[in-house]
Formats: sequence, structure tokens, C-alpha cells
Amino acid sequence: MNIKESIRQIAENAQAASRVLSRKAATVKNDALLQMADELIKNENFLLTENKKDMAQAQKSGISGALLDRLTMKKSTIETMARGLREVAALPDPVGKITAVWRRPNGLQVGKMRIPLGVIGIIYESRPNVTADAAALCLKSGNAVILRGGSEAINSNLAIAGILQNVLRKNSLPEAAIQLIPVTSREAVSALLQLDEYVDVIIPRGGEELIRAVVAQSKIPVIKHYKGVCHIFVDEFADSDMAVSICLNAKTQRPGVCNAMETLLVHEKIATAFLPLIAAELIKAGVVLKGCAKTREVLTDIAAATEEDWFAEYLDLVLAIRVVKNMDAAIAHIEKYGSLHTESIITRDYANAQRFLNEVNSSTVVVNASTRFSDGFELGLGAEIGISTTKLHAFGPMGLEELTTTKFIIYGNGQVRE
Amino acid sequence: MNIKESIRQIAENAQAASRVLSRKAATVKNDALLQMADELIKNENFLLTENKKDMAQAQKSGISGALLDRLTMKKSTIETMARGLREVAALPDPVGKITAVWRRPNGLQVGKMRIPLGVIGIIYESRPNVTADAAALCLKSGNAVILRGGSEAINSNLAIAGILQNVLRKNSLPEAAIQLIPVTSREAVSALLQLDEYVDVIIPRGGEELIRAVVAQSKIPVIKHYKGVCHIFVDEFADSDMAVSICLNAKTQRPGVCNAMETLLVHEKIATAFLPLIAAELIKAGVVLKGCAKTREVLTDIAAATEEDWFAEYLDLVLAIRVVKNMDAAIAHIEKYGSLHTESIITRDYANAQRFLNEVNSSTVVVNASTRFSDGFELGLGAEIGISTTKLHAFGPMGLEELTTTKFIIYGNGQVRE
Repeated sequence: MNIKESIRQIAENAQAASRVLSRKAATVKNDALLQMADELIKNENFLLTENKKDMAQAQKSGISGALLDRLTMKKSTIETMARGLREVAALPDPVGKITAVWRRPNGLQVGKMRIPLGVIGIIYESRPNVTADAAALCLKSGNAVILRGGSEAINSNLAIAGILQNVLRKNSLPEAAIQLIPVTSREAVSALLQLDEYVDVIIPRGGEELIRAVVAQSKIPVIKHYKGVCHIFVDEFADSDMAVSICLNAKTQRPGVCNAMETLLVHEKIATAFLPLIAAELIKAGVVLKGCAKTREVLTDIAAATEEDWFAEYLDLVLAIRVVKNMDAAIAHIEKYGSLHTESIITRDYANAQRFLNEVNSSTVVVNASTRFSDGFELGLGAEIGISTTKLHAFGPMGLEELTTTKFIIYGNGQVRE
Repeated sequence: MNIKESIRQIAENAQAASRVLSRKAATVKNDALLQMADELIKNENFLLTENKKDMAQAQKSGISGALLDRLTMKKSTIETMARGLREVAALPDPVGKITAVWRRPNGLQVGKMRIPLGVIGIIYESRPNVTADAAALCLKSGNAVILRGGSEAINSNLAIAGILQNVLRKNSLPEAAIQLIPVTSREAVSALLQLDEYVDVIIPRGGEELIRAVVAQSKIPVIKHYKGVCHIFVDEFADSDMAVSICLNAKTQRPGVCNAMETLLVHEKIATAFLPLIAAELIKAGVVLKGCAKTREVLTDIAAATEEDWFAEYLDLVLAIRVVKNMDAAIAHIEKYGSLHTESIITRDYANAQRFLNEVNSSTVVVNASTRFSDGFELGLGAEIGISTTKLHAFGPMGLEELTTTKFIIYGNGQVRE
């Protein structure tokens, strides 16, 4: 069987499994998730051995330190995976939830009921824990999942997926509800992306390059975000202490993630007073600053920001700073250079806070708090399968509910259309 | 300027207009919609003259009777368009609606607020009234729209769009909020479908061929339905009179539409009694019947249904009939041959009704009523921009709300992430 045909078979089996899974009660799915957590712990030695094979191969092929770090599994990695599975088991099941019912003049009762999306394809890199995390969220939401991890983690991923599948089998759940594509060639991904007859959505998780490659090829809808260029706008009416604390947190608490601040916008009326305060703290934390001409009139020692800096997702201890004339200018900057991810305003002014919330149409808009709260767990969704910065289906952090859709249900008693 | 560049300019202008429009109050949008209705009526002679140009061209090029019929505008067509605009003005504005707010343990108030999708591209055929209908729904939901009608209706469409744009200008609304692509070549559509930087969603309205061509080319998410192969399952516990009335309505009340019944499934325990009753009524209404072997044991005069018949969307007075062993067989048939559009069960049995509603995951699932109710107006959405049979973003009939998404809004008072 060639690769194309074997991927088609995987997708067809996933669709059949998804139909069975969509009807399973929450208790059945939860039992399986808890057993999966136990089995991961029990098979710790096996998992670490398989991971060592990946590590050895990665070192031989000269993979960089950061990637190697993300590939490494330790005892604690396995415990974290198991805890994740147990947390997903504890979340409410979105499937079957009736979100609204109304009555039509002709007596029809019309409602909307949550149902799984069907088959979800996840394409990801490096970190083997995604295999367990994504499988758990898809299983809980009643979806079959096709996992396609990076070639560098193939042994770890196969080991994890094998353990999860064993539990499915023991619980009379369809094994094809969780499948890992064992072929690591690009041809396998290309083949998968054509199968819109079987696969309902593709979620790519990784760098912008990976995501663009997936979008370019896919006939299946893709939920994605390319990057997070998050802004904080310090309004003229900001509380300075709060602004310093929030900006420092948003930039330095974890600089390598998509909801970290990348550009700071400062109202010109507060710039002379505020910029030295925040600069001192940021520089102490090791942040490299780049500024517009007006910023550099105050912070004379920092480098000039170029046009590319306004578009940049540094994912590092680097920050671009721009002084803006007013809120219109701040919003215009965000519209031109932003990525629709997360923006925050720091202000004590009621009207400005409300205006920012209403007029900035990024996926998460914040008043007086750090951009770092743009995260499924932090927002109270219970879990996160990813973040979407495209407006279709889901916009912003995605939890279990975003892995479902709604169907219309109609209760009639003989109605026909006039 | 070449075609590609002029389409890019249209899309860029639409995006700029969408940002202005997203902040406009409902009253401003409603005033414009009401004036548009008035202006269409005032310009009746102009519209009929322009439509006659299209009709003359169509007759010259030998367009078929049905298409010619859909292209024709009469005084009543214009009045219907105007009434449609007024109805949209009367609907509630979904933009700015806060669908939920909750409090996090750290005091953050997190909510979800409805916002427009942004720029919507509509690709459609023949009927010029779509120009006004689609423009109205997009305007009301705060979206800029790029309309691309068929070449056969270009003069009618340009006339309608011109009138709508005049009203936008007079009301200080951005003219680029409603744009009609004046170029009728395929190159223009291909160029539009690449502009994912500016356009948020494409909604194709037309035959399956048109929709498949759009999906094959588009880098922009597409909301669509290919076809409606709707089923009615007459359960063993059906009320026979109700089943006859509903089946007759679903097949014959308007056979050329996507929510008409195409296949009738009958429980074998009721087949001998029920089939002659429904066949008599359907044949009287001019319906041609095709049946499986078991159906033909009862209805000996009808033709045999082939495998293709189970997949067929006849859009005509033709019906395929299959006798099934039980509900499992009925659901299996729907899963294999259905199009995820609309399915109905006729039964007096409580458990069977509930099981059908829960287990059939088509976009609309009905108990004891006609499939013809699967329609935005009939379900109480107020209007309909289209129907989706893909599960992403919207599933089933789409009203104004489905032309929006939600952003997260967060009210903080200084929170930073630990």
C-alpha cells in the first residue's frame, strides 16, 4: 500500500471511529482518560527508553539546544502528561449540551445542541507531550484525532499513542479514535491535507513556517494563528505603578510565548514621565529596547526601531516602543501592525477603557491586566487546544467547546410548510 | 491597472471600510437600510432598463428557460428586494452583544463580545436580488462585502449596487462597505480567492460545480454547502396520516430547493401498510418513484433505485425509497449517503425520537415535521445568508449572528501572571 492510500485508510477509519465516539457517554470517556493517565505512569521506563532513541538521533543530526530541550522527556514530563489527562477528565463534557431552545409561532420547538466536529488533524513539532494533551481534548469532546508529530519525536510519539490506544481497546472504544501517522515524510502531510471528505478541521501547532505550509496545501479548513504581536497601550490617564508592573510582566514573565508583549505604545502626554520608569525596570530585567524618534528623545541611549520592528514577534527579551499622539493613533498602529492576538490598555479613564474594549477587534482585548492572561486555562476555559487569530469558527484561545459545533434540533407535531 | 491589482485594491478598500463600519451604531446602519429600500423603489425604471440589457444578452446567447427566469426582474422583484432590506433593518444588531461574562479567582472579569467577521466575499449566480439581500445582511452585521455576481446579470447587479453605494455616501458610511466586482472574467474570482490578507470569509451561492471550483482555489475559509440530500425516516411507530402529510410536503411543496426530501426511508414493519398510502399521494402530485427491492415488492410498478439514486440530489419531482430493517439501518444509510443537511423522523415513540435527535449529526435534525423548515426564516433566525453543511464556524442555516464572531474582553485592575 502506498503512502497516499495508507493515509486515506487512516482518515476513513478515523471518520468511522468518530461516529461511534460521538455517541459515547461522558463517564465512558472519562474512565478511559483516567486509565490513560495511569498507564502512562506505569509505562514510564518504556517511554523514557523510546524517548532516548529520539534524543540520540537528534544529537547525531545536530538539532539545536532549544529544540533538543523541547524533545526531552523526563519522569516529570510524564507526570505532567498524566495530570493533564486527569484534568481533562474532570472538565464538563460539551457534547449534547443544548445551548438554547425557542418556540416558533407554528409550535415548533427549535434548539441548538453541541456535537463534536468529527475528525481533527493535528500537525505539530517537537514536544511529545502534545500527543497526549491533544488526544485527551479530542477524546473528551467526542472527536477522533489524527496526530502527525515531527519526525524528530517519532519514537516517543508512537510509544505514547500506543499506550493510549491500548486503553481505548480495553474500554471497547474504537482504537481509530486516536491515531498517530507513523510515516514522517512530507508526502504523508500533503496526502492528509487533501482528505476533506474525511477530516473536518486541521489544527497546526508550531512555527509560522509550518503553519503557512499547511494553509497553502490544505483543502480542509485550518484553525490557526501565525504569530502574536501583542501590544500594551499606556494611556495618558494610566496609573504609572500599575503600568510598570503589567508591562514588566507581559514582557519578561515568559518572553518566548505568543501572548508576551512585543510592542509598547505610550501616550505622548505621559511619555516623558513614564518612559524612564519602565525603561529602568525592563533594562534591569535584561530587555533590549528599540524606540521611535520621540521615544529616543527621552531614552537617548536606545537603538532606533525600524519599520520591521513594528511587525516583529521577537519571542525574546526585546521590546519596540512607540510614542503615540492619542488613542486613535494607538488603535491605528495596532490595526496596521498587529496580529489580532491580544492587546491591553492601561488607564484610569472609564471612557477610554470602554472605547478600547469596543473598538480594538483583536481576539483578546484587555483593560488593566497583563497580555499573558490570553490563555485557555487563565480565561477559565479549563484547557486549551490552541489559539485562533482567524475569525472563523473560533477567535482567541480555544477550549473543549471550540472543538464542537452545534446542530439545530426541531421538535414538531406534524407541521408542514405552507 | 491589471485585473489582479484592481481586485487587490477592492479588497484593501473593503478592509479599511470594514474597520469603520464595525464601529457604527445600529441606528446609523438601519437608517441606511431603510433609505436603500426607498431608493430601489424610486429607481424602478432604471433598474428594469438595466435588467432588460441582461435579458437581451442572455436570450442572444441562448440561456435556458430556468436561468432566464431567475434573471428576470419585475416590479414585484424590486418590491420584494425593498421589503427584504426593511426586514433586515428591523432585526436586532448582533454586534457588541456580550454573550457571557464570568469572574476568575484572581478577580479578572472575562467576557465574550460579538464583533463582525470583517470582509465577506459572496460569489453567486443569476438572481440579481442576491445583490441587495447579501449586501443588507453584511451591512447590518457590520461587515464590508465584496459581491461577485454572474456575468449574465452584470448590468442589473451594477445598477443595484450603485444605488446602495449612493445611500452609503449620503450617510457618511464608507462606500467600499458594499462593492461589486465589475469584471466578469474568471480571473477576477481567482484573484479574489488568494487575498486572505484582506478577506475573512467567502460564501459561494450556486450549484455544486461553482462551489467546488471556489473551494479548490481559495486560500480564504469558505462557508458552503454542496448539496442537500435530505431524508425522512418513517419509523415503525409513525402516525401514518402525519407521515403522508409531511412526506408529501417535504417532496412536493418546492422540489427544487436544498431542504426538499430526496430519499424516503421506511421501517420494514410499516412498509406494507404505509408505502401504498404515500405512493398514491406522491404519484397524484406527479412524483416519479424509484425503490429498493423490498419497496418494489409492495410498489410493483416503480423503477429500481440504483446506488447513484441514494446519493442523488434530484431537485425535482423524483424520490428514492428504501425499506430499512430498523433505526440502526436508517442512521447507517444517512451517514453513508447523506449530505449533513436535514433529516427528519416520523414517530410516536419517545425513545426513538430522542435517539434520532441525539445520534444523527446532520446540521438540522427534525422530529415529526417537514424538512422544509430547515431555513433561517422558518427557524426564527430572522434572515438567512446561506446554509453550511461543513461543521466549522456555522453548521446549518446562517443568520446575522453567524456573520459575526466573538472576541474575549477582560476587565482587570492590575493583575499580572504569576
